[in-house]
Amino acid sequence: MGIGNIFRAFQPKDKIFFDLFERIADTLIDMSKTFHEGLLEFDVNDESMLNQMSDYEHKMDDLTHEVFVQLGENFITPFDREDISQLAAGLDDIADYIYASAKYIYLYKTPENKVYSEFSLLIYKSCVELKKAIENLKDFKNPNEVKESCIKINSYENIADDVLSQATVKLFETNDAILIIKQKSILDYLEVVTDKAEDVANIMESIVIKYA
Amino acid sequence: MGIGNIFRAFQPKDKIFFDLFERIADTLIDMSKTFHEGLLEFDVNDESMLNQMSDYEHKMDDLTHEVFVQLGENFITPFDREDISQLAAGLDDIADYIYASAKYIYLYKTPENKVYSEFSLLIYKSCVELKKAIENLKDFKNPNEVKESCIKINSYENIADDVLSQATVKLFETNDAILIIKQKSILDYLEVVTDKAEDVANIMESIVIKYA
Amino acid sequence: MGIGNIFRAFQPKDKIFFDLFERIADTLIDMSKTFHEGLLEFDVNDESMLNQMSDYEHKMDDLTHEVFVQLGENFITPFDREDISQLAAGLDDIADYIYASAKYIYLYKTPENKVYSEFSLLIYKSCVELKKAIENLKDFKNPNEVKESCIKINSYENIADDVLSQATVKLFETNDAILIIKQKSILDYLEVVTDKAEDVANIMESIVIKYA
Repeated sequence: MGIGNIFRAFQPKDKIFFDLFERIADTLIDMSKTFHEGLLEFDVNDESMLNQMSDYEHKMDDLTHEVFVQLGENFITPFDREDISQLAAGLDDIADYIYASAKYIYLYKTPENKVYSEFSLLIYKSCVELKKAIENLKDFKNPNEVKESCIKINSYENIADDVLSQATVKLFETNDAILIIKQKSILDYLEVVTDKAEDVANIMESIVIKYA
Repeated sequence: MGIGNIFRAFQPKDKIFFDLFERIADTLIDMSKTFHEGLLEFDVNDESMLNQMSDYEHKMDDLTHEVFVQLGENFITPFDREDISQLAAGLDDIADYIYASAKYIYLYKTPENKVYSEFSLLIYKSCVELKKAIENLKDFKNPNEVKESCIKINSYENIADDVLSQATVKLFETNDAILIIKQKSILDYLEVVTDKAEDVANIMESIVIKYA
Repeated sequence: MGIGNIFRAFQPKDKIFFDLFERIADTLIDMSKTFHEGLLEFDVNDESMLNQMSDYEHKMDDLTHEVFVQLGENFITPFDREDISQLAAGLDDIADYIYASAKYIYLYKTPENKVYSEFSLLIYKSCVELKKAIENLKDFKNPNEVKESCIKINSYENIADDVLSQATVKLFETNDAILIIKQKSILDYLEVVTDKAEDVANIMESIVIKYA
């Protein structure tokens, strides 16, 4: 398509943005992998996982800020400035909510809930698809593969919805109001992570529709 | 106005989008009517209403997806692509939160709460106004009538806010923490439906401001 | 910069928008100051503070509506119409959530919680920075000072996050499920106010990046 060709003519400038987005996606993969592994062998007294989540969250803030700095310095961007800033903000939201989930898992010190790691696996898988989608967005050659990754991310969000409702019903069976308030709030945070991944997938799908 | 005339020159292409938006609005009217009637004669052991909500939610997903497919295939759109995609996403959110409300009403199996049908009536009335606004947006002849529908939707959201706070205070009088957690969460979902309808009204008002 | 100069050529028309945004920022400063002072000497039986919050919230609705009316009447705007409407909507959200916080503080009639006024002080400080940022946005001479205000607002939101998590953990020590549900919900509303201020800061930063 014509617009795609125009886009490819600007490669050197664009490289800055795609390099940044790939580093962001890699950071999210590392963050969600560490989160998932930390939950599989969770120990409330060992806060090393929480500290790593905090470090990743700061790294994501820095990378997101760098996208905005680059937007200010480059008149030519691979796609609309609004799309770039929305994409960066959306990816940062994912990190924010992973960190918030980890924070409250440690703060509330409730007994282990096996469901947390079901969520973290879905989150990790979503981040892997986000990385693929960003790579395929770079070439603008593979719009269908971007779409396929987005469909997978949407399906992980649907699964997360079901995991949430089943886990919530099971949680109420404990009849322990205070435990319910704590764990329901953590489950809600975890589900929001998959919502934020879906938001990013929708942003990428609309970019593909515009330019591919 | 000049822009309005330019717009009207593209009618055949536009028809696709307005036809889709009218089908979406009709689906929301049917969905909210079935939801309201189901709540008026609610029976937790008869899940037919929930199944219908699930069917409507899938139908809305398909129609929303069709809007995005059409955006990809049509260079000429009746108004900005961003407005069309925001409108479609906003209308889909309404269906998602009606379905979520219905799901948790069935899952939590709490005793009937008369307030649910007060909300569903406000939701149904909002969907009727959304349909009117979409029809009046089509002609671009009746910007004032679009605005009037939007004002009504905003007023339903205000009423829903009051219904929520009064119902929540009354709920606390039961002093039953677990019942409170469950029903408060359902009331919050129901109120979000009216928030989402207000978001759509705001999108339509800003479209009218731009083009009418 | 060239774009900045073009912008300054339109001053008379722009004045309408900046005058409105300054009145909005002044209203938010007054509102948050009254809210903070009301919480410092809180008396659940004296609803005068709540009535003032309701008045301010209505005043903000009127001013926000006036921004949209002016958008409809002016073809020339100081920056993109989307940015103006997002800025107006974001500032209105701050007022909505201050009012919601106040409403539930009165409705739930729970014993005083010293933390509420820690939040209201952060909210007041954020509104003071919003006013500064809007003034510095007007001239487009001081993009760095806009950015500095935005950084401060972001830091208040970070502090609010910590205040929230510490207050929530302390709240659970009461072991009183119903008190926890009520006060947790108020704390969450208060924290959302600082989130909404951060959203506005992000909108202003992206405006500065585009035009400064």
